[in-house]
Order: sequence, then structure tokens, then C-alpha cells
Amino acid sequence: MSTTFPPLALPTRLLHGPGPSPVAPSVLEALAKPCIGHMDPEFMRVMNEVRAMMQAVFRTENEMTLACSGTGSAGAEMLMDNLVEPGDTCLIGVNGVFGGRLAEKAGRAGGVVETMELDWGLAFDQDALIAKIEETKPKLVAVVHAETSTGVLQPFDRLGEAVHKHGGLLVMDCVTSFAGAPVEIDAWGVDAAYSGTQKCLSCPPGLAPVTLSERAMHKVNNRATKVNSWYLDLTLVGNYWSGSRAYHHTAPVNMNYALHEALRLVLEEGLEERFARHEAAHQQLKAGLLQRGFKFASDPEHSLPMLNLVSVPESIFNEAAARKQLLTENNLEIGGGLGALAGKCWRIGLMGHGARSENVGAILTALDSLG
Amino acid sequence: MSTTFPPLALPTRLLHGPGPSPVAPSVLEALAKPCIGHMDPEFMRVMNEVRAMMQAVFRTENEMTLACSGTGSAGAEMLMDNLVEPGDTCLIGVNGVFGGRLAEKAGRAGGVVETMELDWGLAFDQDALIAKIEETKPKLVAVVHAETSTGVLQPFDRLGEAVHKHGGLLVMDCVTSFAGAPVEIDAWGVDAAYSGTQKCLSCPPGLAPVTLSERAMHKVNNRATKVNSWYLDLTLVGNYWSGSRAYHHTAPVNMNYALHEALRLVLEEGLEERFARHEAAHQQLKAGLLQRGFKFASDPEHSLPMLNLVSVPESIFNEAAARKQLLTENNLEIGGGLGALAGKCWRIGLMGHGARSENVGAILTALDSLG
Repeated sequence: MSTTFPPLALPTRLLHGPGPSPVAPSVLEALAKPCIGHMDPEFMRVMNEVRAMMQAVFRTENEMTLACSGTGSAGAEMLMDNLVEPGDTCLIGVNGVFGGRLAEKAGRAGGVVETMELDWGLAFDQDALIAKIEETKPKLVAVVHAETSTGVLQPFDRLGEAVHKHGGLLVMDCVTSFAGAPVEIDAWGVDAAYSGTQKCLSCPPGLAPVTLSERAMHKVNNRATKVNSWYLDLTLVGNYWSGSRAYHHTAPVNMNYALHEALRLVLEEGLEERFARHEAAHQQLKAGLLQRGFKFASDPEHSLPMLNLVSVPESIFNEAAARKQLLTENNLEIGGGLGALAGKCWRIGLMGHGARSENVGAILTALDSLG
Repeated sequence: MSTTFPPLALPTRLLHGPGPSPVAPSVLEALAKPCIGHMDPEFMRVMNEVRAMMQAVFRTENEMTLACSGTGSAGAEMLMDNLVEPGDTCLIGVNGVFGGRLAEKAGRAGGVVETMELDWGLAFDQDALIAKIEETKPKLVAVVHAETSTGVLQPFDRLGEAVHKHGGLLVMDCVTSFAGAPVEIDAWGVDAAYSGTQKCLSCPPGLAPVTLSERAMHKVNNRATKVNSWYLDLTLVGNYWSGSRAYHHTAPVNMNYALHEALRLVLEEGLEERFARHEAAHQQLKAGLLQRGFKFASDPEHSLPMLNLVSVPESIFNEAAARKQLLTENNLEIGGGLGALAGKCWRIGLMGHGARSENVGAILTALDSLG
């Protein structure tokens, strides 16, 4: 292969899959600001502001709130690696791909993993989860708040109390809900949560907002064994984000600029206003899809506004070809099904900057063009 | 803390510490191009071109060449986590901070680690390393090519043969040398190497170029145990970068744009020309420093052109204050000493876009202002 290439020429896509989502122009501008050093006092200020804004969006006062230097999956692994010690009992809710990944990560961290399974497209009944917690008294419980593979929103408000009653920790995946629907870390008693930048934050992928309670950090600070990962070791990363500011790794400086601007836009709009905008776009899309005969494949009582799971219409012979047509002819990206839903479902995202009436219109028009 | 902040206003720094380094304008422009999906065929093209260009700079034909979705430290961890199985004997050369980190990571991966220590500022004699390899016959040998903490360039050309003779694998840290000095993966028999984007590539931090030989991938593909890390598991990440293109995690799309442009600039300039430019800037800086009475603190026979380790002049009472003065009054960042060299040495970088005569002039002028 030749190694002489012209400068990148890229298409402009309408990003309405499961992420990445459309990025606001000012976020791209922030991304391209001149790089400064990761130990520069001015970058420390950026980190402080990023943390304060993440705390506001997480609705938490957790000091240990930071942007993990990897994508959402790295954030998940940071929590599992630090919070699970070999032999710890872990209860993981699995009703989609990402619950399954949490179980896999807890297992690699040395946990003795028990899963609670549920049909994909459904949300767990909190009473059923609580009964299982009472029964197994796990040291760690992890549940996905917004299953990106199924478009399901999981009720969460009563889980913290049940987990804490037995001295356990509650971990939440809010990759897809963060900044698009209410995420109440402190009110729900969540001990640790992670997200990604490329969903409702509308920032390019590359960082994972994470937050940990004092209870969670007590566990981290009193481990008997070293964390598997040095890169994601919270005692080291935490010292860089606050405390001694000791050098650990070279932070992705420019990605933190972009996250700063993305968070700023979220708070400038207002959380409630932003959630309402996501809900309104969802209702508009839902009405349009139902009118066109699409069938939703997730429980309508627990649908995510920012990610809509629909069955592939029977009139579509080759769903991958149809998505490719949308991409190449309409510059519209929607997502295929993941895992057990591959080939059966489509995932239509309305995230962050893209949760707007004009985007819904463009999606419906493009779908109409499939004939 | 209030969560209302204005858009980021940042100073423009002359980045002449140990990285990040000055970023070329076209790299920042590439970074800010509109985000597309991580499964978009157009992004697959970007990945293919990034891989081809990394192969050219690594001077390798390794198929398993990819950009790890984290900073250089994540690249190091990816290699250690995948190449070390519990109980594997590892020999790690430690003559600075980053050799020590490799030993730490090999240990966390389950390796039985033996270190070979040397005074900081010196390079290992290859014969001494080879004798130690003959003696211990380790399954993995890891040596730092360019010690970012000491400014030392390690001769490497004879190590591969010695390691392979006993069936072992040779791992190289080329974080600081990659794209600034010759790195000959295939010719030197290196089985696995990692770098970072923020040194001589002159790209913002956030990705780690890595490459693995077929011999290394044979080890990865025949592990008896799972890799500790799911995020860095090469059988999963590798399937996304080539082969089945199976979704693993959402790649940092825009960072890969920037890496594409940074690599393009390297190859457009030409590797030999780029190495010569780094050497010329180094000689100019060295002459200016010696003229001003600075003393180099690394072996002059094995000095890195792109990172100059000098003793803090005796006339400087408070070295941290002096560096802060350079930063705030001259917008010049130079690096302090790391680890055992903290408070004793400065590290002056001339990396990538910053390895130019005018930058050397600005550095010397700023140092003169310290009085």
C-alpha cells in the first residue's frame, strides 16, 4: 500500500445512530485550540472547570469526578478494575450488550459474577432487582441506566438503598442517558457511574466522564490487592485530577477542551430544558415512525428518548444495504442492531445537538426514500 | 464552585518540555473536521491510511499496527497486558521512570519481573543486556529506546536476535523517538513497540501508535488466560482495526483525523530529512546551552536529539519558580526533572514541529531572561 495520501476529505454525515452524535460547531472550535501542557496551571484550571461542570450534570458532590482518558468502555473498565477485588461477589443486570460487557469486565477484574438476565428490550422491575440483592448480598451491583443496544431506560431511584443495606456498592452505566435524561447520582445513591462524550454531550468520542462516591473511594483506598490496570488506577489518576496534581499520564489535552465546551453548552441550555428537548424530539420521531408503520421493539413504558429501537420493516429485504443507502445517498447514519438484535432492529439516535425538529424531519424524509 | 464559565480562553505556549509538543496548524484543522461514525466506511478508510503510514514510520510490515485509544501509557499497558501471562518471566531494563513503569505494568499483568538497573542518564551496553538475557532466558524483554525522563537514546539493533534465540519477545518503548529518530522495528527484530502522539509526531495527546509482530501475535492468540483488560484486549481491538471490523469500542474519531494529518506531514517531509532536522536543532541548542554554561546530565554519547537533559544551573535558587517564570513571562514550557531527577534537572524538548532554528532561538532568549 502506498503511504502517500492527500489531506483528509470527509463527508458530512447526519449522525443519528447510537453515537457519535452531531457535534456543535463551538465544540469543534474548542477541540482545535492550541495545545498546552498537561501540567500547565492553565490546564489545571480547565480540569477544575470540567470537573465542576460534570458534577453539575451528574447531580453529585463527589470530589472524585473526572474525565477518564479513554472512551466510555475505558470508563466502565476503570470502575470495575478499581472497585472489584479478586473473589468479590458481583451482581450484574444483563438485558443488553452493555450489561453483558459489565459482567465480562467484573469477571476479568477477578469478581465472582452472578448475572440477572432479562429479555432484551425490557427494563428490570426494581422490586425484582432488590429481591435478588437481598438474596445474594453482593459486594457490587452494576446496572445499565440506558441500554444503548436496546433503547431501554432503567428505573434506578430505589436501588442504592437496597445495595447499601448490605454494605455493597452500586455502579451505573449512564453512557447514553448522561446530559439527555435525568441522572441523579446523589439522590439515587449511586456509588460510581461512567458515561462517554459522544452521546448526549455531543462531543467527539475519546473521554469518559466518571464519578465515584466517598463510599466507593473508601473501597478503592483500602484494597488489599493492586488494581490490574496502572493506566486506570484511580489512586494514581485521582492524584492528578485533584490533590497533589502528581503527573500520571499525559492527559488528552484537546479532548478536554472539547468536553469543556460541550459541558458549557449543556449547562447554558439548562438540564431540564435539555431533557425536555430530547423528549420532544423523541415524541416527534415516534409519531412519524408509527405513522409510517414502524414498530418499536422496546417496552414503550421504558423507552429512551435519545435512542429509538425499531424492528426492521418487513418490506426491507436487506437491512444492511438499506442502511448503506441511507448513508451514501442521504448522508444519514442510523445504527443496526447489536448482539442478539443484529439484522432485526435499527437504532435511531436523537442525541444532544441532534435532538431537534429539523433533524427528525431529515430522518423521516430519508426513511421515506427507501420506498 | 459556580458552574457558569465563559468559553475557553487559553494562552499560546511554546511547548519545549517533554511533550506535548507544538502542533502544526493543519493537524489542528484535521482534528476539528466533522465527526463521522466509527463504523462508517469512510472512517475505515481513515484507519487503513493511518495504519499504512504508521507502518512506514515504524519501518515495519506488521499487519497488527494500530492506534490504541488512549495515551502512550495505555499503549504500554496494551502490550504488557496482552504479551504477559501470569508466571511469565520478564526482564525489564530500568534506567529511568519509564523503564520502571514497564516493570510495574509487567508485574500487574502477572509477570515474574526481574529488572536490570542502571544509573539514570546512561544507556545500557547491549553486550551487558545480551549477557543478562543469556543468563535469565526471559519470555519477555522490555527496554526503553528513548527514556523521556533522562534524555537517553538506547542502542537496540542487536537485542532482537538475542531475545529470539531463547524464544522470547522484545518490547520497545519508542514514545519519544518515534518520528524523530530512526526506529527500525523489523530490522532490529522488535516484536512489539508503542509510542504516543504528542512527541515527535506533533499531534495532541490521546492516541498510542502500537505495532506487534506475527511472533508477538502468536503469543497473544495462544494465551491460556484471558487478558486482564477488555478495553485493551488485542484480539478484540485487532478485529476492529482489521479482519472482521467487528465493533469493539467507539474509536476516538477526531483524534484519528489528527493522527492521519500528523503522519502525512512526517512522510511528506521524509523520515531521513525529519531526523536530520531534529539533529540539527539539537546541535544548535546544545551549542547555545554549553556556551551559557549549562551542563548536560545524560551521557553525551547517547543523548536524544529531541529531549535534552541539563542540570539546573547553580545560579537558580528555586528551579520550579524559574520554570514558572519562563511559562508566565515567556510562554515557554520546559520540563522539570522526573522521579530521582526532580528538582535537579530540566528537560528541554525539541520535538516534531518544534525542532526548528527559530524555536531554539526563542528558548535560548527566554533562558537568558532568567538572568
